[in-house]
Amino acid sequence: MALVVQKFGGTSVGSVERIRNVARRALATQAAGHQVVLIVSAMSGETNRLLALAHEVTRLPDEREMDVIAATGEQVSSALMALAIQGEGGRARSLLGHQVKILTDGAFTKARIRTIEGSKIFSTLEKGQIAVVAGFQGVDENGDITTLGRGGSDTSAVAVAAAIGANVCEIYTDVDGVYTTDPNVTPKARKIARISYEEMLELASLGAKVLQVRSVELGMVHNVRIFVRSSFDPPEKIDPHGHPPGTLICDEGEIMEQQTVTGIAFSRDEAQISVRQVQDKPGVAAAIFGPLAEANINVDMIVQNVSADGKTTDLTFTVPAADYQRALDVIAKAKAAIGYTRLDGATDVAKISVIGIGMRSHAGVAAQAFSALAERSINIRAITTSEIKFSLLIDAAFTELAVRTLHSLYELDKA
Amino acid sequence: MALVVQKFGGTSVGSVERIRNVARRALATQAAGHQVVLIVSAMSGETNRLLALAHEVTRLPDEREMDVIAATGEQVSSALMALAIQGEGGRARSLLGHQVKILTDGAFTKARIRTIEGSKIFSTLEKGQIAVVAGFQGVDENGDITTLGRGGSDTSAVAVAAAIGANVCEIYTDVDGVYTTDPNVTPKARKIARISYEEMLELASLGAKVLQVRSVELGMVHNVRIFVRSSFDPPEKIDPHGHPPGTLICDEGEIMEQQTVTGIAFSRDEAQISVRQVQDKPGVAAAIFGPLAEANINVDMIVQNVSADGKTTDLTFTVPAADYQRALDVIAKAKAAIGYTRLDGATDVAKISVIGIGMRSHAGVAAQAFSALAERSINIRAITTSEIKFSLLIDAAFTELAVRTLHSLYELDKA
Repeated sequence: MALVVQKFGGTSVGSVERIRNVARRALATQAAGHQVVLIVSAMSGETNRLLALAHEVTRLPDEREMDVIAATGEQVSSALMALAIQGEGGRARSLLGHQVKILTDGAFTKARIRTIEGSKIFSTLEKGQIAVVAGFQGVDENGDITTLGRGGSDTSAVAVAAAIGANVCEIYTDVDGVYTTDPNVTPKARKIARISYEEMLELASLGAKVLQVRSVELGMVHNVRIFVRSSFDPPEKIDPHGHPPGTLICDEGEIMEQQTVTGIAFSRDEAQISVRQVQDKPGVAAAIFGPLAEANINVDMIVQNVSADGKTTDLTFTVPAADYQRALDVIAKAKAAIGYTRLDGATDVAKISVIGIGMRSHAGVAAQAFSALAERSINIRAITTSEIKFSLLIDAAFTELAVRTLHSLYELDKA
Repeated sequence: MALVVQKFGGTSVGSVERIRNVARRALATQAAGHQVVLIVSAMSGETNRLLALAHEVTRLPDEREMDVIAATGEQVSSALMALAIQGEGGRARSLLGHQVKILTDGAFTKARIRTIEGSKIFSTLEKGQIAVVAGFQGVDENGDITTLGRGGSDTSAVAVAAAIGANVCEIYTDVDGVYTTDPNVTPKARKIARISYEEMLELASLGAKVLQVRSVELGMVHNVRIFVRSSFDPPEKIDPHGHPPGTLICDEGEIMEQQTVTGIAFSRDEAQISVRQVQDKPGVAAAIFGPLAEANINVDMIVQNVSADGKTTDLTFTVPAADYQRALDVIAKAKAAIGYTRLDGATDVAKISVIGIGMRSHAGVAAQAFSALAERSINIRAITTSEIKFSLLIDAAFTELAVRTLHSLYELDKA
């Protein structure tokens, strides 16, 4: 008998019929001899409807009250799910954030979980009931209702799984797993059977929007095995390669035959800004990135080469395309403090990232990419590297070609 | 400085614009130097929408989960109200049943309040904030969410007023007070300035659907002065007779010039059943009303005359018109146990009730009614009396005529 946490997102509980499907799936898991804890999001569209109502009342709504309103979405869906399980002949009970209780800090709309009490969940399970926990919500030490931010139900699920020592945390979503790259770019993209937390963190933050980054971090810290699956697949489905459906996110030790490269992520929503002939002296990076942070502009890649003459250097960084003009203005305004001769940039750029834990022990992985792209006459504007990934900035027009080239290069096309 | 509880029902908070109106009214009360606690219902239609959703999921939904769902209506409106007050430049904070906390028994969907902790309300008021309490909901000793039944927000308001020792509990609704009778039946109906708890209990349970009966009982027990007012009147409005707007429900000692008769209530939704030649022996009433209670049929008037021959008597009672056929079936089925010769009845009947604390000390009040109705050839089918009211069962066709006749007879037409 295993202790299983199953999380279902908004589209998976978006209608009464879908809620019933989830109920049947949870009961099938229970019937197979497991104890089941469900974590549910609000029905799709509900959170937006509620927040719109709050904004209709006042332009800048107080965040404490926003959370009181937003939390009702998950309150309703958790109780509906308990009812649906009962309607299918099973036993279930809903548990809200303050009932579980999921204690958070007091940062309304973006609270972080501090502790989770397991006793109410265990007493529910011991009665043979399925515990249906409202995702996304918690309660602070004053008894005020808090929420965990967009996608917070993933974090609820992994945190609950960690707190009760679940054997696995299954995240059901509208895709059937994590892919080597976007299947819309190349039909050769394959589902990854197992991926390490570290790789998933890189993939998730780079645009593979399968689950909330925080939940992967939490899984890594508490070693919670996370299984990403489609809620629309039949439970018994096995993929053509004989793998169980979905993708397991786990410790790298669990992954026997580590590939050198696990996946290729990309983002077209990038803009590049280059600050030319910056004085090569201490404090200059702070003079550039301090004002950008103050303006709430998120900087991604940062490339600074070693100065050739010991006096000046060029500094390149990327920002979200939507913030391009604002970022240029910020840097122009800070020109005196920074001290540079020229400012240029481009918005028609894309970032391609190659991710793989195997890179650590395989030299020349990036070099292969440079050659392959050169053969296709794809110019590389900038390069950054880390232990388990490297990212390349290229002209946006070449995005698909570059992804397909690298996907083949690292043999991700092969089953 | 007074401590004021103001309760607003579903129509009073039915739209964003109306919520803002309530916010302004509460702020005006606060600006006049008072401490204000608001109790709010769900936005009109919201509770029905939520319960329909639950019924869509399963035909006989579990009541614990129903309450989790239903309570979100007031959760949303209390937070929206706090936001609206903030939007008008004021300070406010929402408080849910489990936050206040309003401790109830565990009877889901019809819980009764046991205790209310005042500390969270007081600490909110001490910060200069308006406390916006979600009506209708509480929490039981297990931390489960409960609701108080339809119209329960009135009860929340009076209970909170009692718990914090408020000077007055204002119930804002879509009518501007309690009337001597239904103004649709006679334009001569007048608003009652003051009415005793006992009279209001009789009027409320007889169809003057201004506020929940339980809230009046609670007000009587804890001596909470309840002010019924319209949320659509301007706060400063004084009625043509120089009275403050609305109706004050209070102890009879507060009512100086007690009228003999305070109001005339009526109900057309009645059916009469007569059980003929019942054996006049102990236990026969139980044999009739036991099975009706088991069938969940609510019996209202019961009339049994003293047997003339010491052997048999006729017994008449009324039930809601919708239960008429079912009640006949129940009695027919129990014929052997009851022992009667004939069963008859009628659905085209109405009950007229004359209410007034002054009746206690004025003989012949009912006799006047009998004469006045006889003059108009209105036949009285049955009569019941109590300390402060008497009720007459008549043909439904004469309802309006009877109400108008009695309204004039007891000088309720006069200002």
